[in-house]
Amino acid sequence: MARPYIPSLDLIDPASKGETWAIARLISRAEAGVPEVREAIGQIYKRVGRAHVVGITGVPGSGKSTMVNRLVRRLLDDGLRVAVVAIDPSSPYSGGSILGDRIRMSDLVMHPNVFIRSMATRGAVGGMAHAALDVVDILDLAGFDKIIIETVGVGQDEVEIAKASHTTVVVSAPGLGDEIQAIKAGILEIADIHVVSKCDRSDANRTLTDIKMMLRDGVGGALTRGWAPPVIGTSSLDNEGFEELVAAFEQHLAKLDGAPGIERREQISIFRLRKAAEALMLEKLRTESDFETYGQRVAARQTDPYSAASAIVKHFSTET
Amino acid sequence: MARPYIPSLDLIDPASKGETWAIARLISRAEAGVPEVREAIGQIYKRVGRAHVVGITGVPGSGKSTMVNRLVRRLLDDGLRVAVVAIDPSSPYSGGSILGDRIRMSDLVMHPNVFIRSMATRGAVGGMAHAALDVVDILDLAGFDKIIIETVGVGQDEVEIAKASHTTVVVSAPGLGDEIQAIKAGILEIADIHVVSKCDRSDANRTLTDIKMMLRDGVGGALTRGWAPPVIGTSSLDNEGFEELVAAFEQHLAKLDGAPGIERREQISIFRLRKAAEALMLEKLRTESDFETYGQRVAARQTDPYSAASAIVKHFSTET
Repeated sequence: MARPYIPSLDLIDPASKGETWAIARLISRAEAGVPEVREAIGQIYKRVGRAHVVGITGVPGSGKSTMVNRLVRRLLDDGLRVAVVAIDPSSPYSGGSILGDRIRMSDLVMHPNVFIRSMATRGAVGGMAHAALDVVDILDLAGFDKIIIETVGVGQDEVEIAKASHTTVVVSAPGLGDEIQAIKAGILEIADIHVVSKCDRSDANRTLTDIKMMLRDGVGGALTRGWAPPVIGTSSLDNEGFEELVAAFEQHLAKLDGAPGIERREQISIFRLRKAAEALMLEKLRTESDFETYGQRVAARQTDPYSAASAIVKHFSTET
Repeated sequence: MARPYIPSLDLIDPASKGETWAIARLISRAEAGVPEVREAIGQIYKRVGRAHVVGITGVPGSGKSTMVNRLVRRLLDDGLRVAVVAIDPSSPYSGGSILGDRIRMSDLVMHPNVFIRSMATRGAVGGMAHAALDVVDILDLAGFDKIIIETVGVGQDEVEIAKASHTTVVVSAPGLGDEIQAIKAGILEIADIHVVSKCDRSDANRTLTDIKMMLRDGVGGALTRGWAPPVIGTSSLDNEGFEELVAAFEQHLAKLDGAPGIERREQISIFRLRKAAEALMLEKLRTESDFETYGQRVAARQTDPYSAASAIVKHFSTET
């Protein structure tokens, strides 16, 4: 039986009361980037800004997912409502989900104060970042206290999403390969909080020391001005370090109540506006251009990609 | 002593004679996306199309880099001139290079028939893909027979670059972790040729069998219509399998001389045109829009990102 279509604007009210079906539908539409949902997102945007958005990123193999699972439990113990948005590096072709399976298997899915959702990175025009931030607003409207955005931390898009949160956590782990370590180096710089997971391992101390040394040498540093990123060891196996991690969240959040917070929120707003404008602009380019005709001439080398691209873009002029 | 500035158009001639200094300067400008180089790229584009472009991608830890090193040696033995463009997932913040160090250490750097270059993914407007393809054209002009584009194979941008080559090779390896395996699943689909590296390992047979089974089940399949992707085991340690791999290159290249080749080349041309147009369009958006004023209103929640983005994009109209 087909569900009746409810316009996005009419989903705002039930979503704000925490109705899961309404939240899920709004999120699906935001993720798909359907134009119809944009007015609703606009209205939601003006009502929210209460939730604490935590971006958690780390290379594959960093134990990030298990760590997030433990962290969510810890936050639930404090009586908080927690949402997790996992940015899913799914296949760009088949659309098959990668993190999806893990999420479905998670025993947290059934908890009344938890909402877990994976978002596929495939096919998003102008990147995923603005869709992810739309989803954050919907979850904020729905009354979640902590919204965790989990990304794999490879690829600029994922890094940008992590940056567009209030508090950015980078997860490292001992014993990863050289190439992974090198990719990791690129994301260490965006951390407000460093976590070294798998601290039950004997080689974890070296990883902790390495990150502390790096910070002392002035490499990296927080996104938040005037904040010294703590380095926290956790063990998902022994359930250790999460007390300290949650305390660091609160300290960083307190910091954000001051001037650095205003600065950070402005940066996020401008970033988000840019991403939204880029998406709309590329949509306009796609729908109002004749790529086929020009493309065939490029393929035949009668013209070159830049001349053809210039000719296409020249059709768009700004009003004066 | 500062080098005199030579306009890009004047670099075409020396670059076409294989002068490394001219090739390097053109590449640097293409990579930086400076507008001045575009006319030169346009002229180069109309002169090239001779080289065989091979995209090689694989997840971190797949032994891809060592494999490429062996492969280049094998191609040099055949008297070919070989260029390698390594798409480098460098830090988006410090700009620090990751693959760079490996490349500098490579003993191939000094070989007269080899050109190796790493390109950073940071900051490229509209993605790296069109800049990478510009670089390919410059190397084609310079007379390289095989141009290898090596990417880390995580992130849509990297996958797109691999797809934009004539022959796409996906490297797998035995014994990788679950999360890495899952990411890998997403890129297996784009392979014209599968390589399983580290075949000196005892568990390599299982990886070979897994990929063959997957292909038999109709999962994945080549980018090239009517082509059954071979699955080739290599061992960089024992220098085995490269004969077979090079033979597969030639078989695939022969296939591309027919109708599937024309189709593939048209797809690449249209893809490239799109990327170039997107880059120009976003440049136009950035330079002709007032993000600051709108951004502050969004930050103050006086308006929402979509309304502001619409207002910005509305300034751009198509001529009728």
